[in-house]
Amino acid sequence: MLKKLGQDDPRRIVHSLKVALALTLVSMLFYFEPLYEGLGLAAMWAILTVVVVFEFSVGATIGRGLNRMMSTVVAAALGIGAHRLATLTGNQGEPILIALFVFVEAGIVTFFRFIPQMKTRYDYGLLIFNVTFCLVSVSGYRDKVVIQMGFERVCTITIGGCIAVAVCVFIRPVWIGVELHNRISTNMEKLANFLEEFGDEYFKVSENEQTREKSSFIEGYKSVLTSKGSENTMANLARWEPGHGNFRFRHPWEQYLKVGTLPRQCAFKIEALNNYLTSETQTPQEVKSIIQGPSVVISSECGKALKELATSVKKMTKSSSNEPHIAKSKDAAEELKAVIRSSLCKHPADSLHIIQEGAVASLLLEIITCIEKIADAAHKLASQAHFKDVKPTVKPDQENSVNDGPHHVITIEG
Amino acid sequence: MLKKLGQDDPRRIVHSLKVALALTLVSMLFYFEPLYEGLGLAAMWAILTVVVVFEFSVGATIGRGLNRMMSTVVAAALGIGAHRLATLTGNQGEPILIALFVFVEAGIVTFFRFIPQMKTRYDYGLLIFNVTFCLVSVSGYRDKVVIQMGFERVCTITIGGCIAVAVCVFIRPVWIGVELHNRISTNMEKLANFLEEFGDEYFKVSENEQTREKSSFIEGYKSVLTSKGSENTMANLARWEPGHGNFRFRHPWEQYLKVGTLPRQCAFKIEALNNYLTSETQTPQEVKSIIQGPSVVISSECGKALKELATSVKKMTKSSSNEPHIAKSKDAAEELKAVIRSSLCKHPADSLHIIQEGAVASLLLEIITCIEKIADAAHKLASQAHFKDVKPTVKPDQENSVNDGPHHVITIEG
Repeated sequence: MLKKLGQDDPRRIVHSLKVALALTLVSMLFYFEPLYEGLGLAAMWAILTVVVVFEFSVGATIGRGLNRMMSTVVAAALGIGAHRLATLTGNQGEPILIALFVFVEAGIVTFFRFIPQMKTRYDYGLLIFNVTFCLVSVSGYRDKVVIQMGFERVCTITIGGCIAVAVCVFIRPVWIGVELHNRISTNMEKLANFLEEFGDEYFKVSENEQTREKSSFIEGYKSVLTSKGSENTMANLARWEPGHGNFRFRHPWEQYLKVGTLPRQCAFKIEALNNYLTSETQTPQEVKSIIQGPSVVISSECGKALKELATSVKKMTKSSSNEPHIAKSKDAAEELKAVIRSSLCKHPADSLHIIQEGAVASLLLEIITCIEKIADAAHKLASQAHFKDVKPTVKPDQENSVNDGPHHVITIEG
Repeated sequence: MLKKLGQDDPRRIVHSLKVALALTLVSMLFYFEPLYEGLGLAAMWAILTVVVVFEFSVGATIGRGLNRMMSTVVAAALGIGAHRLATLTGNQGEPILIALFVFVEAGIVTFFRFIPQMKTRYDYGLLIFNVTFCLVSVSGYRDKVVIQMGFERVCTITIGGCIAVAVCVFIRPVWIGVELHNRISTNMEKLANFLEEFGDEYFKVSENEQTREKSSFIEGYKSVLTSKGSENTMANLARWEPGHGNFRFRHPWEQYLKVGTLPRQCAFKIEALNNYLTSETQTPQEVKSIIQGPSVVISSECGKALKELATSVKKMTKSSSNEPHIAKSKDAAEELKAVIRSSLCKHPADSLHIIQEGAVASLLLEIITCIEKIADAAHKLASQAHFKDVKPTVKPDQENSVNDGPHHVITIEG
């Protein structure tokens, strides 16, 4: 099982080795006399920092590292101030006053962690603020060199944080922004896979065995239904990342979330379609065949449009290659409406079956609207994120369908 | 805004005060001579432990506390062993061997964190294992009293962990199990609110202003669509909690997740219904009115059945008071099917409108199936979690509708 974990995502092995390397590096603070002399046992804070700061992605590591370093600096300064203030009152009052400071500070900072804006970005910093303020002000009661202690803590945490961030960024970095980017485009692909298969699956004369085999592939969209939380987290972490590759520092992550929401709404409709695919009460083939023609076209053209959109997002190109597919599916939609008007409702079959086919048809019509919205959002993203303008050299039309390969979208990776 | 945060959930203020109290308690280790003599500056680990272990809910606090304590014990023992082994090789080899140990240990433990079963329950423990092993084995190179250091660390972390857990459990505890329990029942209620309102909203002659006001209430179900992740987290944390109130130690949290999944599937269908509610292309009233009668009954009876289910889950009672509502909605379903067969498809209106009404009708039919599944799962939960058997003293039937108040479900809270 461990082997499979590593094979599924070799970056896991790399990450484990990176953590091991960073820890070995930071433990050098103990081995080399000149390094150790300056810090002493406080060097253990550096070890602690490396372990708790080092995360899988660059964004998470930098976020935690900065949170830890900044809040340590501020809290250590305040802690020293609190200690000084308390010593003014003399030996009797000192512990009482410090206890009071700690109580008030901990109460306020803990409550701050409930503020949603703080929670998403500075939760860890507030936690460390609590730790440092308390440590510095309280241990000052015993160890009178409180300024030195605060300074040591800031130093060692900075050293540990920098080692963790450096190893994370410079050795095979995992950018959470790229992960989010790919996730958004993969989500679209998963929907596209369903739509491309749906027509054939739904209208084919049932051969039970084949259906079962395909279902795991076709149901890939299910993960999109509940992916909102993890996408939000990724966008929050991606904000910490510096510019890298085609991603600038202030990349429009908000717009990614918007582009991510629309496929989810589309996935709700696909979930409804999938119900009809797996439903036990199947409509007779003769009723299905009424709407078959335009429905198959809509489903597969919508799938193709989504695939094009997914590709252009993935490759960071401005591309309008989805438009002909959307146009075709809209034509088919008119045809489908005409078929419903002229034949479906006048068919002598059981009305319940007719209604079911009508429901499938109307879901397909809604999906077209969804795809159009996704296309709009993706275009907006393309302009906000400065995707590269690509003039397709070959018009991806039926006239040139021989050349309709993937090469009409030129990547900017080269 | 801070005031609103506190008013929305006063437990946040209580939690902040609890953290402040625990920190003040643990800082006593520094103030009192007899306590301080035994531990010295190592007492700061206790402070650190209180801050990082103290979470909002009992489950999370106990989970982190146990993870931290157990992994510290094991890692400290191993760290001491590694140090001993390394010293055998003499001064030259010692740092090299320790560095090797740290590298191997950190690599393996970090990789273990990717195993899904470990990640859900022992992620924090593995992190702390890394910290402690590294600290103990490495600082042993400088400070030869490495056994004492390991022992101190175990002691102080245990003290800190116990203070955090004790304050969390004994002062106004927030049980995550109860939260999950209430969440599941609230989710059902949210769906029920929609269903109870849907009939009136959809079929009423449109008065735009009123629609807008109600929409925020009626759309409460939307949070159910994406709540899967947080429910899973809650169930994982709830497993750490000891028995409390009506919740035993091995409460069937898995079954809660199953009962939580079904309302989500129902919510997908409700999302589709809501589309028809807000859609711009409204069917003419005359077409709507064909299916109005049975549709309104289905929708409101399904809503009532869900409310009964939600109440019996919330109050932990076995109740069959939802059954008459499901029965009524099934009767109405037969009626609806008959109406579709006899009138809807023969109506001279635009076929697209007829199909839309058909879609609404078939969604309502599917929702009945959903509610039945929810009822089954809730009954299974009731028997697994030993909900109390309640014989309704008043039959919640139409014959006794005067007495149809909430008092026929007897709570076991008293």
